Amino acid sequence: MNKDFIVPTLGKCTIKSPIQISTVKGDGIFDFIQDDERVLYDTSVNQVKEDIAKGLDPLSFEKAGPKEFIYFEPAKTKVAIVTCGGLCPGLNNVIRSVVNHMWSRYQVRRIYGIQYGYAGFVPENNLPYIELTPDIVDDIHKDGGSMLGSSRGNQPVDIIVDTLERLSINILFAIGGDGTLRGAQAIYEEIKRRDLKISIAGIPKTIDNDINFIERSFGFETSFSIAMNILTDAHYEAKGAYNGIAIVKLMGRDSGFIAANAALASPDVNYVIIPEMDFDLDGPNGFLTVLRNRLERKHHVLIAVAEGAGQFFFEHSKNIKDASGNTAYEDIGLYIRDKIHEYLTGVGIPHSLKYIDPSYILRSSPANANDSKFCFQLAQNAVHAAMAGRTGFVVGCWKNSFTLLPIAQATKERKKVNLEDDLWWSVLEATGQPHSMKNSK
Amino acid sequence: MNKDFIVPTLGKCTIKSPIQISTVKGDGIFDFIQDDERVLYDTSVNQVKEDIAKGLDPLSFEKAGPKEFIYFEPAKTKVAIVTCGGLCPGLNNVIRSVVNHMWSRYQVRRIYGIQYGYAGFVPENNLPYIELTPDIVDDIHKDGGSMLGSSRGNQPVDIIVDTLERLSINILFAIGGDGTLRGAQAIYEEIKRRDLKISIAGIPKTIDNDINFIERSFGFETSFSIAMNILTDAHYEAKGAYNGIAIVKLMGRDSGFIAANAALASPDVNYVIIPEMDFDLDGPNGFLTVLRNRLERKHHVLIAVAEGAGQFFFEHSKNIKDASGNTAYEDIGLYIRDKIHEYLTGVGIPHSLKYIDPSYILRSSPANANDSKFCFQLAQNAVHAAMAGRTGFVVGCWKNSFTLLPIAQATKERKKVNLEDDLWWSVLEATGQPHSMKNSK
Amino acid sequence: MNKDFIVPTLGKCTIKSPIQISTVKGDGIFDFIQDDERVLYDTSVNQVKEDIAKGLDPLSFEKAGPKEFIYFEPAKTKVAIVTCGGLCPGLNNVIRSVVNHMWSRYQVRRIYGIQYGYAGFVPENNLPYIELTPDIVDDIHKDGGSMLGSSRGNQPVDIIVDTLERLSINILFAIGGDGTLRGAQAIYEEIKRRDLKISIAGIPKTIDNDINFIERSFGFETSFSIAMNILTDAHYEAKGAYNGIAIVKLMGRDSGFIAANAALASPDVNYVIIPEMDFDLDGPNGFLTVLRNRLERKHHVLIAVAEGAGQFFFEHSKNIKDASGNTAYEDIGLYIRDKIHEYLTGVGIPHSLKYIDPSYILRSSPANANDSKFCFQLAQNAVHAAMAGRTGFVVGCWKNSFTLLPIAQATKERKKVNLEDDLWWSVLEATGQPHSMKNSK
Amino acid sequence: MNKDFIVPTLGKCTIKSPIQISTVKGDGIFDFIQDDERVLYDTSVNQVKEDIAKGLDPLSFEKAGPKEFIYFEPAKTKVAIVTCGGLCPGLNNVIRSVVNHMWSRYQVRRIYGIQYGYAGFVPENNLPYIELTPDIVDDIHKDGGSMLGSSRGNQPVDIIVDTLERLSINILFAIGGDGTLRGAQAIYEEIKRRDLKISIAGIPKTIDNDINFIERSFGFETSFSIAMNILTDAHYEAKGAYNGIAIVKLMGRDSGFIAANAALASPDVNYVIIPEMDFDLDGPNGFLTVLRNRLERKHHVLIAVAEGAGQFFFEHSKNIKDASGNTAYEDIGLYIRDKIHEYLTGVGIPHSLKYIDPSYILRSSPANANDSKFCFQLAQNAVHAAMAGRTGFVVGCWKNSFTLLPIAQATKERKKVNLEDDLWWSVLEATGQPHSMKNSK
Repeated sequence: MNKDFIVPTLGKCTIKSPIQISTVKGDGIFDFIQDDERVLYDTSVNQVKEDIAKGLDPLSFEKAGPKEFIYFEPAKTKVAIVTCGGLCPGLNNVIRSVVNHMWSRYQVRRIYGIQYGYAGFVPENNLPYIELTPDIVDDIHKDGGSMLGSSRGNQPVDIIVDTLERLSINILFAIGGDGTLRGAQAIYEEIKRRDLKISIAGIPKTIDNDINFIERSFGFETSFSIAMNILTDAHYEAKGAYNGIAIVKLMGRDSGFIAANAALASPDVNYVIIPEMDFDLDGPNGFLTVLRNRLERKHHVLIAVAEGAGQFFFEHSKNIKDASGNTAYEDIGLYIRDKIHEYLTGVGIPHSLKYIDPSYILRSSPANANDSKFCFQLAQNAVHAAMAGRTGFVVGCWKNSFTLLPIAQATKERKKVNLEDDLWWSVLEATGQPHSMKNSK
Repeated sequence: MNKDFIVPTLGKCTIKSPIQISTVKGDGIFDFIQDDERVLYDTSVNQVKEDIAKGLDPLSFEKAGPKEFIYFEPAKTKVAIVTCGGLCPGLNNVIRSVVNHMWSRYQVRRIYGIQYGYAGFVPENNLPYIELTPDIVDDIHKDGGSMLGSSRGNQPVDIIVDTLERLSINILFAIGGDGTLRGAQAIYEEIKRRDLKISIAGIPKTIDNDINFIERSFGFETSFSIAMNILTDAHYEAKGAYNGIAIVKLMGRDSGFIAANAALASPDVNYVIIPEMDFDLDGPNGFLTVLRNRLERKHHVLIAVAEGAGQFFFEHSKNIKDASGNTAYEDIGLYIRDKIHEYLTGVGIPHSLKYIDPSYILRSSPANANDSKFCFQLAQNAVHAAMAGRTGFVVGCWKNSFTLLPIAQATKERKKVNLEDDLWWSVLEATGQPHSMKNSK
Repeated sequence: MNKDFIVPTLGKCTIKSPIQISTVKGDGIFDFIQDDERVLYDTSVNQVKEDIAKGLDPLSFEKAGPKEFIYFEPAKTKVAIVTCGGLCPGLNNVIRSVVNHMWSRYQVRRIYGIQYGYAGFVPENNLPYIELTPDIVDDIHKDGGSMLGSSRGNQPVDIIVDTLERLSINILFAIGGDGTLRGAQAIYEEIKRRDLKISIAGIPKTIDNDINFIERSFGFETSFSIAMNILTDAHYEAKGAYNGIAIVKLMGRDSGFIAANAALASPDVNYVIIPEMDFDLDGPNGFLTVLRNRLERKHHVLIAVAEGAGQFFFEHSKNIKDASGNTAYEDIGLYIRDKIHEYLTGVGIPHSLKYIDPSYILRSSPANANDSKFCFQLAQNAVHAAMAGRTGFVVGCWKNSFTLLPIAQATKERKKVNLEDDLWWSVLEATGQPHSMKNSK
Repeated sequence: MNKDFIVPTLGKCTIKSPIQISTVKGDGIFDFIQDDERVLYDTSVNQVKEDIAKGLDPLSFEKAGPKEFIYFEPAKTKVAIVTCGGLCPGLNNVIRSVVNHMWSRYQVRRIYGIQYGYAGFVPENNLPYIELTPDIVDDIHKDGGSMLGSSRGNQPVDIIVDTLERLSINILFAIGGDGTLRGAQAIYEEIKRRDLKISIAGIPKTIDNDINFIERSFGFETSFSIAMNILTDAHYEAKGAYNGIAIVKLMGRDSGFIAANAALASPDVNYVIIPEMDFDLDGPNGFLTVLRNRLERKHHVLIAVAEGAGQFFFEHSKNIKDASGNTAYEDIGLYIRDKIHEYLTGVGIPHSLKYIDPSYILRSSPANANDSKFCFQLAQNAVHAAMAGRTGFVVGCWKNSFTLLPIAQATKERKKVNLEDDLWWSVLEATGQPHSMKNSK
C-alpha cells in the first residue's frame, strides 16, 4: 500500500469501545470498521484492473468509522475544539456534533472550546476557553458563524503545544482550511517530537471546496446554493436594462468550484470565469469580442467570476500576502467590469453595467439540509478516529464514503477544477461558453 | 377643501361601468366609491377637532376605488404601461394586475408594454412595444425585475406625447420613482396644453419608501426583509472574530427607511446611520468614541448605514449628477469603514472589519406575500381611477386606505424619516444607540 | 368621549419616567405621549364631519406610547409574562422585547416567565417560573414557538390572583387570543375586587387576525405568507394532472382573513371559501357547478378553504367544545373534497384530487421581518402603558398607530371579513370567483 | 462482465458527433467516453482484490457521457418526452435540459412533449403534444411540477408503440418511477419485437430515492430539505406544550430515505420510524414505553414516521392497490398518534399531540441548487446515451459518476435503507433511538 496514505496512530487500541454495535454481518446492526478497510481512489474498472495486473496496490484511503477497540479511556479524556480561518456554513453543526458524540457515545465530559482560532491558545491573548456540553451547543446549528469565534493566521507552534500540555488535552479537533491544517500538521509534528500522546484531528473547512483528495467540503453546497440565488437576482438586473450586463463576483481564490457549481445550478449564467482558465480579454477570440457578440444578439448577459480568476492580469502585485499568508489578489471583478465598459464605450454600444459582490453573504448563513447531514457525519467519524488514536489526520469524503487521510496529503496541493473533467464540460454545455477564449499565438 | 389635493379629471363620466357591484350599503356587496369620499391625513382626534373648530377643512386625500360611471369606453380604450428607473420587487405584479384588471374587469383588449422605460417612446431607439394579454403576464410575478425592462432618465416630453398620439393611447400607466413621476407630470402638462384626452396614471415605485404623502410603497417591505437577513449574516461575521465589526451598506439615498425598518426587524443591529441624521465621527460624543466603548465591552458590533448618510463629509462633490439627475454620492460605507480602521488602529485596538454592500440584491427579487397583495390592490385602484378619467395622479396608500393624489403633491418633496417620530424612536430603543452622536459646539 | 373606550388606570402617575425624551415639538427628539392623545376610528372625512356637526365625539382609541410620569417605581417592580393558546409566529419576539424594554428602558430587574400558559400559575402543576434577563432572551426571536411554552384553557381566577399576590407581581403581560384575554379580563376584575395594584396588560395574539378593533395581529402576516407558498405548491399539483383539483385547508375558525389575504398574495387561487360566506354546493349557482364549469374550460383548479367555513353543513355537531371552550368544527376541507369527488364522478368527469392540510406549519415558524418589527413595537408600547399604570387593557394597532383599549372592547365580538369591504372585493377580483354561490330561494 | 449490466443498443454508431471535444488526454478539453469505460459498484479495496483474485469481473456500470460516434442523424431525429407518476422537484429542470441539449448540442429541432404521462399517447384521450423549444422551456425550472403534466398508471403498450410509430419518434425519454420504468421496459420490448429503431431512455424519478443501483435520484434532496424545515416547525410545536408530542408523517412508501435523511439534517428529531424496521408498540422494549420514558425526562418529543412504516399492523388490507398498482397503505401516522394518546391517557400522563402531514408539500416545489445541477447532468447524459443508440436503459449515478444501466436492473427490486449500513447507524446516533424497539420473543 502507498505508505503516504497511511494515517498515523498514537499506539495500540486496547480499550473496548463503549459503543454497542456488532462485528458480524447480517444481524441487522451496524458493524465496527476493521483497520484494513479502505476505499478506492479511482472507480474506473479499467484502471483498477491495470493496477492489479501490474502488481500495484490501487490508491486508496482508510475507511472511517467506529472501532471495536479504542485508544483513549473515555473517563479520562480531555478534548479541545478550535475553529480557524474564515466563516463557513456548518461550523456550528460540526462543533455540536463533536460535542454530542464525545458526550453521548463516549461519555467524555471535559470538552473545551478554544476561542478565536489558534489565537485562543496563546496565553497573552487572555481568551478563556468555553466548557462545552450538549445543553450549550443544543441550538447553535441554527446560527451561522462559529460559536467559538475564529481568527486567521497561525500562532507559534511551541506555545500551542505548551497550552495543550498545560490543559492536559488528549484530542484537538482543528476545524479549518489549508492554512489551519498546515498549522495542525506542525502541531502534530511538535507533539511527536515531544513524544506526547495527543491526537490532532483535522476537519477540513474550505468554502472553496479545494482540499486535495476530499470530494466535498462542508458548507460548500450551502455556499453555491446562495450564489445561485444571487445569480438569479443578477439575471433580472441584466434583463431589466437594454444591453444590461450583470457581473457577480464569487468566492474562489484558487479554485472555481463555487462559480462552476452555481452556474450549473442556475441556467441563467452566460459566462463563468475561474482561476483555472487562461483567457484573453482582447483579440478575435478574447472575452470582450465573445461578450459583444452575445450582447448584440440577446441584449443582456450574466457573468460569474471567481475572485481568483485572471490573476495573470496583475503580475506585479503577486508578492503581497495577507494575514493568513495567502497571496493578496487584485479585484478581477472590478477589472473586468471596467474593461467591458471601456471596450463597449469604445465601439459605441450603449449598455448598463451592474456589479454585485456578495462577499460574506456566501458564507455566514447556517448550513442547508444536506450540509447539516454531512457535518453531522464528518464530526461523527472524526470523533471515532480520534478516540481510536488516529492522529495527524483529516476526515474526508471520497466516492460518498467517509475516509481518513494524513494531513500532509490533504495539504500537499490545492484541488482545482480540472478543465478536462466533466464538471467543467457541463459548465460549458450549460452556458454555451466557448472552450477557449484565448487567441492563438 | 385644499385645492392642491384635488385630482385632475379629463371630463364627465357618462359611461356605465361594466363592473357589477352595488350602490347600497348592507346588501353584502361592495359599493362603488362616491366622488366625495376622502381619507383624513391626520388621525389625531385633537387635530381634527381643532381644524373644524377653526372652520378649516382637515387635509385629506381622495379615496380610490371603482366608480359607477367611467370616462373611457372600454371597447375603444388603448392602454400603455411603462416601468422606469431602478428595479423594485413587485414591478411584475403591478404590470400583471394592470393587465388583468383592464382585460377582465373592463374588457380592454389593447394593452401595450413600452420597453425599457421612457426610452421606449423615442422612435429612434427602435424598441417595439409588447402586446400584453393575461396569458403573457400569467407567471411574471414569480420573477424579479420588470418584464418590460427599464431605464433611468427622462426623454423629451414632446416626443413622448407624439408617440402617445401616434399610438392613440388613452391611458398611460407610468410606474416609477420621483424622477419618473416628475416626467409623468410634464407629460400630463403637455397633454393638457395639446388638449388631448389621455390619462396619465402614476404608480409610485421607490424602494426607499420616500414618496411624499404615501405611507408605503410597493417592494419596500420585501427590500427591508432581505436587508434583515443580510444583517443577520453580518452579525455572525461580527461575532465570528475578536472585536469583529460588520458594516452593511443599505439602499437609501435621501431617506433611511430601509435601514431603520431592517434594524427594527433585526435586533442584532447596534448602530443605524441614516441620511436624516447629523453626527460627528470624532470628539467625545462622536460615533467613533461611542463605537469604541461598545467594542471594549462586547467585542463585536454591527452597523447598518444608508448609502445617502453623512454626505456632509463630502461637501466638495455635491454638484455631480447621475443619468437620472440624482446627486452622485460618495460611498459613506467605505468612508466609515476606513475611519473606524484608522481610529482603532490609532488607539491600538486590534479588530476585524467586514464590509458588506448587498446593493442590487435588495431590489431584484420577486415581491414577498404582503407586497404581492399590495401590488395587486395598487394596480387595481390605478386602473379604476384611470378608467374614470382621473389624470395627473398617483395612486397611494394612507392609513391603510387606497388614495389618489395629484402627482405634483407626491413629488413636491421627499418623504424622510422624522427623527421626532416613533419610528426613529423605536430604532433608538431597539439598538440602544444614543439620541445624538453630535458634539455640542 | 365614549366611556367604553377609556382604558382603566391603577392611579395617579407621580414618578418621573427614567426615559430621556422630550416634551416639546421641533427639537428633533421624540415626545412623551399626552393622556388626551387619541386616534380616530374612522378616517372618512364625511363621517367625522357628520359626527362633529351632530355634537358627537367621533369614536377613538387612546394613543399608546411612553408617559412622562409613570405609576410603578422601577426598582421595586416585579413583572410576569405568560403565553397562552396556540402557537403564533412572533411570540418569542414579544417576550424578548418586553424583557428588554423593562430591563433597559426602566431598569426593572425582576421579570418572571410563567411556564405553559395560565396552568403555570396553578401551584399543583408544579411548574417553576423562569427568571428572564436580556441574555436569556437574546436569541429566542430566531426560534418559532414560545420559549415559555403555552397551554389552552383558563384556570381558576382566584388561584391565579393568589399566585400573583404571593409572588408580589405588579404587572402581568398576558399574551394570547380571545380566550386568554377573557381570562385576563376576569383576572383584572378579581384584582379590582381585591383592590390590588396589579396591572393586567393584554397583548393580543391571534393567527386568524380576528380581534375586534385591532387592525392587525402579530404573526398573521407570517402566517398568510407561508400559506401563499403552500398555495403555490398546490397550484403545481393542480396543474400537474388532467383536471387536477387542489384543495388547501387554511386556519381561520371564525374569520377568513388568512385565506383571503393568502389568495390576494397568490394569484393562482381560483376559489376562496371562508366562514363569513353563505354558499350552496348543489344547484345552478352552487359551488360544484361553478367548479365544473371552470374545470371543463381550464382543466385545473385551486381552492383555498378556511377551516371554519361552511359550518352550516354540520348543524348537528355545534354543541361540542374543545379545551379552550371553542366550538369543535367538522372538517370542511375533507367534506368539500368528498363532495367534489362524488359530484364529478357522478357526471363522468375524470379528475385528480389533492388535499393539503398544512395545519401547524402555518404557525410554528419564526416571525418574518415585518412581523418582527411589529412585535417589537407592540411590546414596547405595552410596557410603557403598564408602567404608566394602565390596566385591563390590550395594546393594539389602528390606522398604523399603536393604541390602547379596554380588554372588554377587544373581546366583545370577533373581527370578521366584511363581505361588503374592499378586502373581500379584491379577493373576488383576484380570483374571478362569483359574488355569490347561493341559489336564490 | 456480468451480462445483466450491459446496456442494449440499437446498432452500430457511424455518425460523427457534432460535439466538438477531444479524444486525447492532457489537452485541457473533455474527452469522449469510450464504450468500455465502466464504474465499479463496490469501492472496497478488499472486495475488488478478492473478486479479481477469484477471476471474477467486479460488478460495474457503464459510464455515461458523449460518444465520438452516434447512432441517430440529428437532422432527422424526432424526440418525445413524457413525465409520469407523482410530482417531484426537478421535473422541469430535466425537461428543460433534455430540450436544450438536443437543440443546442445536436441541433435536433423536433422535440415533442407528451401531455399527462403515458395517457398522452392514447389517441382517445385527445391530448395534443407540445412542441418544445429552448424558448418555451426557458423559465420552467423556476416552477414546481411538470410543464407537461403527469398521470399515474400504465397504458396499453401496443397503443403507445403505435403512437410512437405514427409520430415517427426516434427517442422517447420516459421520466418516472418504478411503475413508469416497468412501463418503459415493456415499451422497449414491444419495440424490439416489432424491430423498430426507437430508443427508450429512462430518467428515474422517485422522491423516495428507492431505485435500485442508483445512488441518488433527482428531487430527493429538495424533498428531505423541505422535510427538515417541517420537522423544525414540529419541534417548536412539541416544545410549546407540556408533554408536547409532534408526529410528522413523511413520504416513503417502501423506503425510509426521506425520514432518515431529514432526521440526520434536523437534530431535533427523537424517533424515526421507517418501513424497513420491525418494531413493537407495546411491551417493555416497545415504542410506547421508550417514548414514555423520554417524555417523563424531557417533556417533549418529535417523531418522524415514513408513510409505509409499520404496515404489519394492517395485515388485513394488503391486497388493495391504487391506480399505479401500488399497494394502498393504512395511515401509520394516525395509527401511532391514536395509540400514543390511548397509552398515555391510560397511564395518566397529560400530553398534547400535534399531527402534521405535509404530504404534497414535500414534492411540488422547484428543485434546490444541488438538485438543479444534478438534473442538468442527468438529462445531459441521457441525451448523449440516447443519441448513441443506447436503449432500454436508465441514466443513473453511482459513486458520483454518471452511469447507464438496463431498465430491468433498476426495476428488479426497490432500494431500501439497509439497517446495517452507516446511514441508519448515523440516524440512531443522531436521535439516540435504541437499535431495536422489538420485544424478544
